[in-house]
Amino acid sequence: MEREQIYRLLCQVQSGEVSPDKAADSLKLEMEPEMQVGNYADIDLHREQRQGMPEVIYGEGKSAEQIAGIAAAMKKKDIPNIMITRLSQEKAELLHSYEGLDLEYEPVPHIGFVNRKDTEKKGKIAVVAAGTSDLPVAEEAAVTAETYGNYVERVYDVGVAGLHRLLHRLPALADANVVIAVAGMEGALVSVIGGLVRCPVIGVPTSVGYGANFGGLAALLSMLNSCASGVSIVNIDNGFGAGVLAAKINRQSVHE
Amino acid sequence: MEREQIYRLLCQVQSGEVSPDKAADSLKLEMEPEMQVGNYADIDLHREQRQGMPEVIYGEGKSAEQIAGIAAAMKKKDIPNIMITRLSQEKAELLHSYEGLDLEYEPVPHIGFVNRKDTEKKGKIAVVAAGTSDLPVAEEAAVTAETYGNYVERVYDVGVAGLHRLLHRLPALADANVVIAVAGMEGALVSVIGGLVRCPVIGVPTSVGYGANFGGLAALLSMLNSCASGVSIVNIDNGFGAGVLAAKINRQSVHE
Amino acid sequence: MEREQIYRLLCQVQSGEVSPDKAADSLKLEMEPEMQVGNYADIDLHREQRQGMPEVIYGEGKSAEQIAGIAAAMKKKDIPNIMITRLSQEKAELLHSYEGLDLEYEPVPHIGFVNRKDTEKKGKIAVVAAGTSDLPVAEEAAVTAETYGNYVERVYDVGVAGLHRLLHRLPALADANVVIAVAGMEGALVSVIGGLVRCPVIGVPTSVGYGANFGGLAALLSMLNSCASGVSIVNIDNGFGAGVLAAKINRQSVHE
Amino acid sequence: MEREQIYRLLCQVQSGEVSPDKAADSLKLEMEPEMQVGNYADIDLHREQRQGMPEVIYGEGKSAEQIAGIAAAMKKKDIPNIMITRLSQEKAELLHSYEGLDLEYEPVPHIGFVNRKDTEKKGKIAVVAAGTSDLPVAEEAAVTAETYGNYVERVYDVGVAGLHRLLHRLPALADANVVIAVAGMEGALVSVIGGLVRCPVIGVPTSVGYGANFGGLAALLSMLNSCASGVSIVNIDNGFGAGVLAAKINRQSVHE
Amino acid sequence: MEREQIYRLLCQVQSGEVSPDKAADSLKLEMEPEMQVGNYADIDLHREQRQGMPEVIYGEGKSAEQIAGIAAAMKKKDIPNIMITRLSQEKAELLHSYEGLDLEYEPVPHIGFVNRKDTEKKGKIAVVAAGTSDLPVAEEAAVTAETYGNYVERVYDVGVAGLHRLLHRLPALADANVVIAVAGMEGALVSVIGGLVRCPVIGVPTSVGYGANFGGLAALLSMLNSCASGVSIVNIDNGFGAGVLAAKINRQSVHE
Amino acid sequence: MEREQIYRLLCQVQSGEVSPDKAADSLKLEMEPEMQVGNYADIDLHREQRQGMPEVIYGEGKSAEQIAGIAAAMKKKDIPNIMITRLSQEKAELLHSYEGLDLEYEPVPHIGFVNRKDTEKKGKIAVVAAGTSDLPVAEEAAVTAETYGNYVERVYDVGVAGLHRLLHRLPALADANVVIAVAGMEGALVSVIGGLVRCPVIGVPTSVGYGANFGGLAALLSMLNSCASGVSIVNIDNGFGAGVLAAKINRQSVHE
Amino acid sequence: MEREQIYRLLCQVQSGEVSPDKAADSLKLEMEPEMQVGNYADIDLHREQRQGMPEVIYGEGKSAEQIAGIAAAMKKKDIPNIMITRLSQEKAELLHSYEGLDLEYEPVPHIGFVNRKDTEKKGKIAVVAAGTSDLPVAEEAAVTAETYGNYVERVYDVGVAGLHRLLHRLPALADANVVIAVAGMEGALVSVIGGLVRCPVIGVPTSVGYGANFGGLAALLSMLNSCASGVSIVNIDNGFGAGVLAAKINRQSVHE
Amino acid sequence: MEREQIYRLLCQVQSGEVSPDKAADSLKLEMEPEMQVGNYADIDLHREQRQGMPEVIYGEGKSAEQIAGIAAAMKKKDIPNIMITRLSQEKAELLHSYEGLDLEYEPVPHIGFVNRKDTEKKGKIAVVAAGTSDLPVAEEAAVTAETYGNYVERVYDVGVAGLHRLLHRLPALADANVVIAVAGMEGALVSVIGGLVRCPVIGVPTSVGYGANFGGLAALLSMLNSCASGVSIVNIDNGFGAGVLAAKINRQSVHE
Repeated sequence: MEREQIYRLLCQVQSGEVSPDKAADSLKLEMEPEMQVGNYADIDLHREQRQGMPEVIYGEGKSAEQIAGIAAAMKKKDIPNIMITRLSQEKAELLHSYEGLDLEYEPVPHIGFVNRKDTEKKGKIAVVAAGTSDLPVAEEAAVTAETYGNYVERVYDVGVAGLHRLLHRLPALADANVVIAVAGMEGALVSVIGGLVRCPVIGVPTSVGYGANFGGLAALLSMLNSCASGVSIVNIDNGFGAGVLAAKINRQSVHE
Repeated sequence: MEREQIYRLLCQVQSGEVSPDKAADSLKLEMEPEMQVGNYADIDLHREQRQGMPEVIYGEGKSAEQIAGIAAAMKKKDIPNIMITRLSQEKAELLHSYEGLDLEYEPVPHIGFVNRKDTEKKGKIAVVAAGTSDLPVAEEAAVTAETYGNYVERVYDVGVAGLHRLLHRLPALADANVVIAVAGMEGALVSVIGGLVRCPVIGVPTSVGYGANFGGLAALLSMLNSCASGVSIVNIDNGFGAGVLAAKINRQSVHE
Repeated sequence: MEREQIYRLLCQVQSGEVSPDKAADSLKLEMEPEMQVGNYADIDLHREQRQGMPEVIYGEGKSAEQIAGIAAAMKKKDIPNIMITRLSQEKAELLHSYEGLDLEYEPVPHIGFVNRKDTEKKGKIAVVAAGTSDLPVAEEAAVTAETYGNYVERVYDVGVAGLHRLLHRLPALADANVVIAVAGMEGALVSVIGGLVRCPVIGVPTSVGYGANFGGLAALLSMLNSCASGVSIVNIDNGFGAGVLAAKINRQSVHE
Repeated sequence: MEREQIYRLLCQVQSGEVSPDKAADSLKLEMEPEMQVGNYADIDLHREQRQGMPEVIYGEGKSAEQIAGIAAAMKKKDIPNIMITRLSQEKAELLHSYEGLDLEYEPVPHIGFVNRKDTEKKGKIAVVAAGTSDLPVAEEAAVTAETYGNYVERVYDVGVAGLHRLLHRLPALADANVVIAVAGMEGALVSVIGGLVRCPVIGVPTSVGYGANFGGLAALLSMLNSCASGVSIVNIDNGFGAGVLAAKINRQSVHE
Repeated sequence: MEREQIYRLLCQVQSGEVSPDKAADSLKLEMEPEMQVGNYADIDLHREQRQGMPEVIYGEGKSAEQIAGIAAAMKKKDIPNIMITRLSQEKAELLHSYEGLDLEYEPVPHIGFVNRKDTEKKGKIAVVAAGTSDLPVAEEAAVTAETYGNYVERVYDVGVAGLHRLLHRLPALADANVVIAVAGMEGALVSVIGGLVRCPVIGVPTSVGYGANFGGLAALLSMLNSCASGVSIVNIDNGFGAGVLAAKINRQSVHE
Repeated sequence: MEREQIYRLLCQVQSGEVSPDKAADSLKLEMEPEMQVGNYADIDLHREQRQGMPEVIYGEGKSAEQIAGIAAAMKKKDIPNIMITRLSQEKAELLHSYEGLDLEYEPVPHIGFVNRKDTEKKGKIAVVAAGTSDLPVAEEAAVTAETYGNYVERVYDVGVAGLHRLLHRLPALADANVVIAVAGMEGALVSVIGGLVRCPVIGVPTSVGYGANFGGLAALLSMLNSCASGVSIVNIDNGFGAGVLAAKINRQSVHE
Repeated sequence: MEREQIYRLLCQVQSGEVSPDKAADSLKLEMEPEMQVGNYADIDLHREQRQGMPEVIYGEGKSAEQIAGIAAAMKKKDIPNIMITRLSQEKAELLHSYEGLDLEYEPVPHIGFVNRKDTEKKGKIAVVAAGTSDLPVAEEAAVTAETYGNYVERVYDVGVAGLHRLLHRLPALADANVVIAVAGMEGALVSVIGGLVRCPVIGVPTSVGYGANFGGLAALLSMLNSCASGVSIVNIDNGFGAGVLAAKINRQSVHE
Repeated sequence: MEREQIYRLLCQVQSGEVSPDKAADSLKLEMEPEMQVGNYADIDLHREQRQGMPEVIYGEGKSAEQIAGIAAAMKKKDIPNIMITRLSQEKAELLHSYEGLDLEYEPVPHIGFVNRKDTEKKGKIAVVAAGTSDLPVAEEAAVTAETYGNYVERVYDVGVAGLHRLLHRLPALADANVVIAVAGMEGALVSVIGGLVRCPVIGVPTSVGYGANFGGLAALLSMLNSCASGVSIVNIDNGFGAGVLAAKINRQSVHE
């Protein structure tokens, strides 16, 4: 609540448009930087002010009941685009039965939305994926970035074993403000892209692979040791984190 | 060489100012995207066009002779600010004896410069370090970023064990376009900063620590698993990589 | 059995209230420091004398039948508050059907109780958890500490990504004799708390996370390398161990 | 500076005993919770108030010059018992040449002291070591605990391969408020002690060993998985951390 | 087939008791050191001659059909006590339906027997287990050793957290020719026993535990780094291997 | 499409046999080096020209629908022997219901074929497996090699614990152009074969084993450190990769 | 010694050209498949017959005296091109003083030669290296391959961060029978080459790098998980092994 | 001191041969199961009674002064064959200067002896080593076993890359009561021997190797996963431990 909004509210109280009681509620709400839900959650309400993006619900390890409780409390405050990441199909179905929640569910990236709103898109982020099996992670990054108001171009299945596929798509990367490169197995895609583009590259190792892949460790180490510079990394399968970071970089580029 | 430069050169040939022979040399040079040095190096001359930053010489594992050879070849092409990273004091001393190289050496970040030039600084990058022992890595990041034309503010020795030190310095982070957070041991600094600032944060784990630190692995894993979003990571002790990436992000922010 | 108890029993024998036969049984039982159950268990009956806390049944890897056998034997000796840790919902249901066992089951921390008694609470232990997903481990610590006669204050969902939540709750930590800090992902909570409180801090890494978390390894290494002093660690997800240790420290503080 | 001290100072100003100028300096100093030294350190001056123990200088990775700078600044504030841990013999010799520093050096635990003072000892901590090779770590713990005002009893070379040695020394452990158990190789000492004493046990794995010891990892994992409860762990070779934690536990036991 | 047996067979041929045709079959069979089963197995028939123990069927990763095929072929050669290790309950049930196989199944150690025979027992092996959860592995060792003709004494649930339990059972270990010590978690049992007995000790780490146990790695490293000498180790959960090795050592002790 | 084929097609256009429209389609198809399928795949159509072998579909992590889409698109271009590796029984059954796909499924190596054709076999590859449990991987190698036109001899269940079994089969290895050695557990088979044959040996570690096998890591490290030379390795369980490589080596040996 | 050679020798004995005594020595020598040197070595003299290449002396961990002893014994048998790999400069200097050994030393690949002979070169092997720091390993591969009679083309400093450098050199790879790809850091070079050439590719990870490189582990895992097929791997820094394997593959290609 | 010895001593007291004072000293000494040396060691004097072998001094991590102190104290009690393992050449030279210690030093296995005596040898142990570089570890095992009264046969440099060398030496293994197999690199020797002999096999992995050997981890995992049974393992480079264990097994075989 900006000073102007507060001032306007107080004028409305003065004029009798709004009762002191109701105004007090609104102001109290704004003053609280956090909100307790049950005995299990303590929502960070000022994260948007501090970080530019609202708190997100990490769906893994929480019960459907806990998720519903947190989301409902956030919705009540009219926080838009409440994201629930790593939400399994099973929990999503349970959440559909909670009245008033109106969950929308994206099955590929396993993201649920409550109070979803259209957002204006500014600036371009390219999301590049090495193989079809990397799509759930790539889509988590892409949908996250779109939710935070970025235009996203998807460049999928362009792994380095068939290098020309990537080279054909270079123009799509040329005008991006950030490239998110998603790859499992040996993750070489990141080094190759890092050597070809001017903008920052965020590598997302995925757990796609087997054997001495060790759940994505191979791609992770490969990307960390990239001989290309201008490259940084997020956790294995962390499409969400890449999407948020790309949004932050893009926001600066488009002078938001 | 931009089209305009070529045109101007050709005019000079026409006017007799420059001999065709010398002009041919210059043009040939520009057309070659790479240059062989001895049988051991193949310099990437178009990296600046492609990446916005010239090739850098990684000093580890190369002999002083090889480094001198590569640097001399680059200097001959008048590439400015040729950086030699991870250059030991010993090799730096050997390089000082190579005539015409005019090496400048920064002992804390172990960086050597050949053909160093002043660069205009635009936009601010904050380099934050947890402890005094992390300085070599933090300085590698800071000096790299300065070399690539960024204003750098250093915020050192503000580890989370004395949280108020960091909180006192928050204003210094507030107007940065990027924060580079350098920390060894448990690397918690990155998560705390990631939760407090709006701009992108680049975590640099250092190998400072002992025991179950495993050469920086503890800080690396800690940063990769950060509960704060908008955070990404480079390799352990890779101050250079963080500096380059920060420069790329900042460049977009200042509309270069 | 204290000397007084023995004396009273002997008086009862003298007076004929108790038969020598039955008294001999009781005394024999007390003299044995261990007790065989079936061919699979050898209960340590003197652990309370030696350690100040009775033996606890580790439920994982034991069949319901074995657990029931051990618990029944302990109950027969009137050992109060027999705890069965890491008891799955499935086994708990099987145990409910054992007559005379009267199992009470706490589903969040997966602890079963046999012969549960109220205990007087002395001194305060604070249990702090980073996120909602860490609750099973935090509750295991809290319930264990309560069972051993400590007052517990729960401070949940205060991870460092929203630092103010923790700072608001500092008063709750100020008068604790021990703080148990439970966190997954990067476990930075422990270092931050370790830098803010006077009392001993016990870190409990949890397996909450994914990717390069490696089942809690990231949080474990992070906590072990904490730059804050006065901090020690128990095994990943070992809420029980933290609860016991906190109880021992608290016991000394309140001069039990 | 307690209120009483401030009051007394102001009385001295009133009476002319102390000049307003000098008093202002003293008060200013006290009000600053931190102090910059050079551009490399930011000393946490309120750590004693917050933590009950002053900041300690971690000697590894700092130059002798930096250490001297920090220690001199702290000595100027008359902070007593300034400890420099992990201080090599070589750096200690360099520090001896800094005038006014008056370094005292303990070679076994590699600790330097500046402004060392006698402290009153209250309550007993037992430091137990498995073998002669573990002494540097055990002494680091012991000397730290003594510095913080605890009585320390050393029980050395009592590894479990000759169990009777430990059993003979049990009385020495019986009246301790905390036991610090230091062991390399397989670290079994911690489990055995954990099963025999009532008080809290702090395990310190050491890097003593070879082969599949992996720099102390074997002892670390062994201690973390201890089947005895009431046991917690600090980092490999972290005698200092164990000493601080033990001091904090003991302090509560003796009602400081 | 010993020379005497061959001689006897030939006499029977001479006397007409056995037809040359049938005798030829028997002799051919004996001369083949291996036997193909389907296209998936190549049974080592001379292992008993070479090793003193027949080939054993490792049940994991083989289909019930393959196991039945191999066992039937071995039974046809009248190899006694054909063991199938790591045989799941499900596969055992499938095998019960194979006619003529007459599988006997031990559910705790997951061992199946075909053509089981009584064997004379000579010399004593003690199998010691730290906890009830280690029983499947301990029983695999014990049943294996019994099958190979050794007397086995079981000493179960005597982990070092209650040391007196083990000390009470020392007499049972005193006259053993080998001790097999089975333990999960921190595996300290092996070092304690190794320091108390004269005979060889075989440590078997188990995967019992959680968190930083890493599937038995903690116990494995602990046992490998044992400060007691006269101790060696087999693979995690490899009760079978320990049983075979103990049998070989015991066989030499009793002058088989 | 070879030049001759193009020429023939154009003649057919001239003669009216083929309409210009249809011919244009065919030529267009040939000119595209890649083909988009849905938004999830980008098939590399020139891989055969570049690599000598067509693109293969990695079945893991793709939905049946995605696999069917890719396979159908490839079949439409009349690419023969379209292989789908790591195809589970469940997905194979779903694929059987896709009309026109005519999937053939090999259950042991988990390979599906679309548009399968007979291929002429030239040159010999020996596939050697240590145990029956290694067959799925060995068969993946063997079937792959056969599909690419190589004669394969299988030598199974010849692990080094019964060395004579391998020695008996040496003649089968003597005239092979490549040996693929497949082994789990300790993978010693590779070193032994490597010391006995003249031709290149490709080691395939399998994940067969338990305990400190760590999913095939033991065999992998063992093979990488082989004291025999002329040996190289592919990823754990990567029978397919070994088959392709062997085919490439064999192809050169038979002067294809 | 071929049959013909033996026959010729016997003819010489018959004719008196060679004394029976000397001939007996020669024949005896040939019949011995191994030769004892001191009590520390047992040279495999038939390795050339069996493997097509003579035994090589691994210089690490052997004293100069032991190396000299083995090399002298082999030279005495007139084995040509005795290679001593991983021979440090220091030991090479010691060996120069052994009379009659006539050591030749190649300092970059750290290989010593005794009894070096020119060999005819047939067929081409390409050795590709990512960076100047990888040269010692690349040269070990190249010199080994040359010693075994292969023509070697070196393509150095063509890492993927400047992809065009590699693309320019593709013609050099097109007619090779094998490519050896040597790379440290993230090792992406192998995947890129693997996707571009028809012939077998041998990846050699090097220990070049720092931080989360872990001594070459990053490159090793990256290469093992290569999405390109037709690729296999040798141990980290094992240029020798790659050279031998490439020689074996090439030998088949040129129908030796 | 046996009963008879005590009796004899008392007779001497009675007869005046020995003064009561001196006899008391002797008896007191015998009654103490341990002996303090300085404040750094607590010698286990009854280890021989309990374990059949005296305590051994582990030389690593102890100063020459500490070693001399312990050895002198043990020598004073006339303990024969006091072994100091892992004693560097440097410390051995320092110890030579301690008067009365009369250190004998074996440089290959790095063992020092004080009060060395000839021992009778009974029963045979074979020590087999894969390569010349493994000799220090093999000799540590061999010398240890000889010191404890066993006949040792050395079979060196018989790695599996030249299998016939091992097969030629099989007779030397056939009559051994134990085989100690020492190997680095991939450690395949243990599996091959394990499949060929009847007696127990003790594997000793060595740290010989490079790259993905990880200091002996490759050989360790390989041996732990051996497909041969009757095999167990000691720590990497632990020749001493293998020697002790072999001595214990052999002692039982020869009915000591």
